Amino acid sequence: MSRKTELQPWQWPDDHWKKLINRVWGGTTYRPKQWKNGARCAVALSFDSDHETNELRDGGTSYGRMQWGQYANRVGIPKVLTFLEKEAIPATFYVPAVVALTYPDEQRRVIKEGHEIGIHGWIHEVNSTLPYEHERDLMLRAADALEKITGVRPVGLRTPSWDFSRDRLLIEKELGVLYDSSLMGDVDCYQLLLDGEDTGIVELPVEWIRDDAAYLLMQRFGSLRPYIAPADIFDIFRREFDGAYAEGGIFQLTMHPHVIGYRSRFWILEELVNHIKAHEGIWFATHADVAAYAKQFG
Amino acid sequence: MSRKTELQPWQWPDDHWKKLINRVWGGTTYRPKQWKNGARCAVALSFDSDHETNELRDGGTSYGRMQWGQYANRVGIPKVLTFLEKEAIPATFYVPAVVALTYPDEQRRVIKEGHEIGIHGWIHEVNSTLPYEHERDLMLRAADALEKITGVRPVGLRTPSWDFSRDRLLIEKELGVLYDSSLMGDVDCYQLLLDGEDTGIVELPVEWIRDDAAYLLMQRFGSLRPYIAPADIFDIFRREFDGAYAEGGIFQLTMHPHVIGYRSRFWILEELVNHIKAHEGIWFATHADVAAYAKQFG
Amino acid sequence: MSRKTELQPWQWPDDHWKKLINRVWGGTTYRPKQWKNGARCAVALSFDSDHETNELRDGGTSYGRMQWGQYANRVGIPKVLTFLEKEAIPATFYVPAVVALTYPDEQRRVIKEGHEIGIHGWIHEVNSTLPYEHERDLMLRAADALEKITGVRPVGLRTPSWDFSRDRLLIEKELGVLYDSSLMGDVDCYQLLLDGEDTGIVELPVEWIRDDAAYLLMQRFGSLRPYIAPADIFDIFRREFDGAYAEGGIFQLTMHPHVIGYRSRFWILEELVNHIKAHEGIWFATHADVAAYAKQFG
Amino acid sequence: MSRKTELQPWQWPDDHWKKLINRVWGGTTYRPKQWKNGARCAVALSFDSDHETNELRDGGTSYGRMQWGQYANRVGIPKVLTFLEKEAIPATFYVPAVVALTYPDEQRRVIKEGHEIGIHGWIHEVNSTLPYEHERDLMLRAADALEKITGVRPVGLRTPSWDFSRDRLLIEKELGVLYDSSLMGDVDCYQLLLDGEDTGIVELPVEWIRDDAAYLLMQRFGSLRPYIAPADIFDIFRREFDGAYAEGGIFQLTMHPHVIGYRSRFWILEELVNHIKAHEGIWFATHADVAAYAKQFG
Repeated sequence: MSRKTELQPWQWPDDHWKKLINRVWGGTTYRPKQWKNGARCAVALSFDSDHETNELRDGGTSYGRMQWGQYANRVGIPKVLTFLEKEAIPATFYVPAVVALTYPDEQRRVIKEGHEIGIHGWIHEVNSTLPYEHERDLMLRAADALEKITGVRPVGLRTPSWDFSRDRLLIEKELGVLYDSSLMGDVDCYQLLLDGEDTGIVELPVEWIRDDAAYLLMQRFGSLRPYIAPADIFDIFRREFDGAYAEGGIFQLTMHPHVIGYRSRFWILEELVNHIKAHEGIWFATHADVAAYAKQFG
Repeated sequence: MSRKTELQPWQWPDDHWKKLINRVWGGTTYRPKQWKNGARCAVALSFDSDHETNELRDGGTSYGRMQWGQYANRVGIPKVLTFLEKEAIPATFYVPAVVALTYPDEQRRVIKEGHEIGIHGWIHEVNSTLPYEHERDLMLRAADALEKITGVRPVGLRTPSWDFSRDRLLIEKELGVLYDSSLMGDVDCYQLLLDGEDTGIVELPVEWIRDDAAYLLMQRFGSLRPYIAPADIFDIFRREFDGAYAEGGIFQLTMHPHVIGYRSRFWILEELVNHIKAHEGIWFATHADVAAYAKQFG
Repeated sequence: MSRKTELQPWQWPDDHWKKLINRVWGGTTYRPKQWKNGARCAVALSFDSDHETNELRDGGTSYGRMQWGQYANRVGIPKVLTFLEKEAIPATFYVPAVVALTYPDEQRRVIKEGHEIGIHGWIHEVNSTLPYEHERDLMLRAADALEKITGVRPVGLRTPSWDFSRDRLLIEKELGVLYDSSLMGDVDCYQLLLDGEDTGIVELPVEWIRDDAAYLLMQRFGSLRPYIAPADIFDIFRREFDGAYAEGGIFQLTMHPHVIGYRSRFWILEELVNHIKAHEGIWFATHADVAAYAKQFG
Repeated sequence: MSRKTELQPWQWPDDHWKKLINRVWGGTTYRPKQWKNGARCAVALSFDSDHETNELRDGGTSYGRMQWGQYANRVGIPKVLTFLEKEAIPATFYVPAVVALTYPDEQRRVIKEGHEIGIHGWIHEVNSTLPYEHERDLMLRAADALEKITGVRPVGLRTPSWDFSRDRLLIEKELGVLYDSSLMGDVDCYQLLLDGEDTGIVELPVEWIRDDAAYLLMQRFGSLRPYIAPADIFDIFRREFDGAYAEGGIFQLTMHPHVIGYRSRFWILEELVNHIKAHEGIWFATHADVAAYAKQFG
């Protein structure tokens, strides 16, 4: 009664691992020769407004971590929005529905100031652990909640924790989103295939390398710590931009209001924008605009 | 027989997560236009005198870690007090009752030299795991022990490990403390609300970013290590101060005698104080004085 | 009924630990007075093309990690091959059979451009956990698969995760490989002994110190993070080379297309090659060529 | 039937935690006004020759880690001894009996070249987990083995992993050693008290801060990594020395042949010795000599 799923990976018949590899596959690369208005490099900044939901998702018992939400709402988001307005840079915010429902005015300000809001799950759930029906229900309700609060229907999404699954992609296809920004298969946008079939969805790829939380989170009773100097993080982000500029590609960056929004860290973003603006031919755009442009002209 | 507590967070009805978020909430921000005597920036240094209690709390079986207490008492605290006296800086020491009972003379010297002692639990217990009655009993006994030894009743506290709970805040309210310094919801002082009601307690917020132990602790049989260069820690603390000074706010810092009190680390504090003193309009004060001033004039 | 294997290590009779230590032992050092064409220092660069197999080996459930394969094939490997061609440097690629079967054209390009491909397991299995017959079967099939795809029979191998065992060495001996590159017993090549007997296999030693993945991997739900600045990794690799050059030895380096192949990291390899080429008497060679030369002239 | 040991630490009666704290306590500080021949600062370098025993202690199943022994014997120890001879510096080597029995010539060379060998357990066992009789038996046999191989009876010891216990100290007292070098209660030598009674043993304190392994070890299937730049480790060690020199104390350092003995790391020790020798009034001495001097004149 040995079943495939009970076999060890090294015992799998070839068709099994081939099916797994093929499930979520990158198709055509979407790489425009140039970006909007002849720009050489697209810069897509994003902020994941997780607030209380990382802790709620884990049970909501730590009031210390829960205060990340207070901090993000009181200090982080205002700091980010003020900066983006001063620099006249549009950005994308990925917001779990629970955060939008708790802080609706914050989301309305984000939209009013010209930014994009994308879907980011219901309560930052680990979607790969959910049954399909529940995941689908949460995602549909999340899209509706964001639309109801902000008046704008989201056209893109980022999975919480960049945790992906086949179900996930099925639901994204049903939702008819323009783009996903959760996978790491390239530096350029690419076509997402599900079991070999085009889903019509553009992937605007992310990377832990370009994520502030990968370097700066900490867990009191674990061993995650912000071990790397902010100056070293700046250097990594800067090199990622320099490479994107040299290749005429996309510089995509992920930040979190409760991670980057501190006095000893926010300068990383400020100095990075200074560095980027010292270059000719930069197109600062939301993830939606970059994905749409890449799909059309790439 | 499905009960709320058995539901997964992504299945919670909205009123459940709303209740959790609302439980410990930050109300009014207390931000004075200027600090005492017209100072531009308040500097609140603190030292958590945990000594043997981190290890005792975990069972007291590691005599290696237990010697942190010896080190703190023989080397760390004298080094800190000598330095503070030379620089004429008042600071706040958070002391578990077990430490005060083991090293009473140390506490009396702290008070005699003009510093504040705040409550820091009985034996550095993880309070969120305790039944309410036990937590309450420990906290009341801790306050009494500190008062009996030093002759001064503490007016503020810091939860061990910055571990917070609803019970915690209830007990703090009953104790009638002026302030708490365990939460991370802002950079300024703020009003603490319990289930939406004012507790009368001021929060003087802390951050792992401004905590020496977050960067420098190590556990032999785990993977915590002091992976970051002391010069990088200095740079983080310096930037935190620079931001506080630029905004006219508070620079709050948490240290530990058994963490900062080493030859390769203590220079961080010395150089930081040099850097701070090179600025005009600094008010060095205890946490109690900063909290009281913020509440009155903020 | 107490059996040896049930004893604690500190209870083992001496013959037991002696047997364990003696099992895989380094014999004669193979250290040529000079390298090919009178070169002073041999430089052996290698790339482990693990692609999807690290995740498949763990169950294949994370589509995020699975995309490492997409990235390595779309971006990493082309970047590496283009660079090696420009610099005219031969290198060695260790490729699990599952990767070769998924990306056969990639392997054929590697061979066509003058590089070596070595065995790297079937699906990056943790070989020390496998029964002998299974491990043997996987290794023989892996050798055949690589030969069938590329037309060249591999002469060397590297165990996935540098995980070694007595069985492993038995199978390597049966396969009749020229060399192994998985152990860390020296800085020079050396003879591999199995239970005291010569296996005829040369060890070309590796080290975590000279492995990009040791510094740069991350696991979302663990605490592995890329905590060290790329500039510091460059400095470590450079010092390893400088030492090898000073001693007239081998500079061996292990990289991964899905680790080094990013805009903020690839400069480490570029700058390292610049640094190396600024020295006289460098012999860039595949692992097979270095091992063969060391065995013949060492 | 509630027994003390079943109580949570926060429920312990005061006499219980007092007993635990008092068990291994630091008495009189032994701090000479000056060191031998009027030297201002004592420098005590040590090397823990763990070789294969870290892995054997954990079961001996990883042949990768087991090769640490090969590396230490073939490369690490020769590099260390050659350097110490060139610099004319005596040092102390702590050697588990299993290592001494496996590499007896190595130990005889260490002694012949004027260094000290101290006890370091039988097989690097975690002594705090052993029953008293077993721990005692291992320690006595370890002392005998070292004496038999080298002809010199050890006068000091370091517990493997700096793991201490009350039993440990009882056995040390029975062995009549001059000193222990495993605890961290001070920067100066001090008297070791057991349950308040003098043991006659001097503690020459160590610190993770001054241990190469604390920064540089790695575990393949855990999250320990050498995340810190060698230059930063040098800076930490240098500052520890500078502080010791400024205070006229001891600079004690712990290294491991299989940790420091690499081309990218050994310069830390070389440069450190250069730095130290640029100062007047340095006494390089074995741990035994420093401990004896401190006890006599402190």
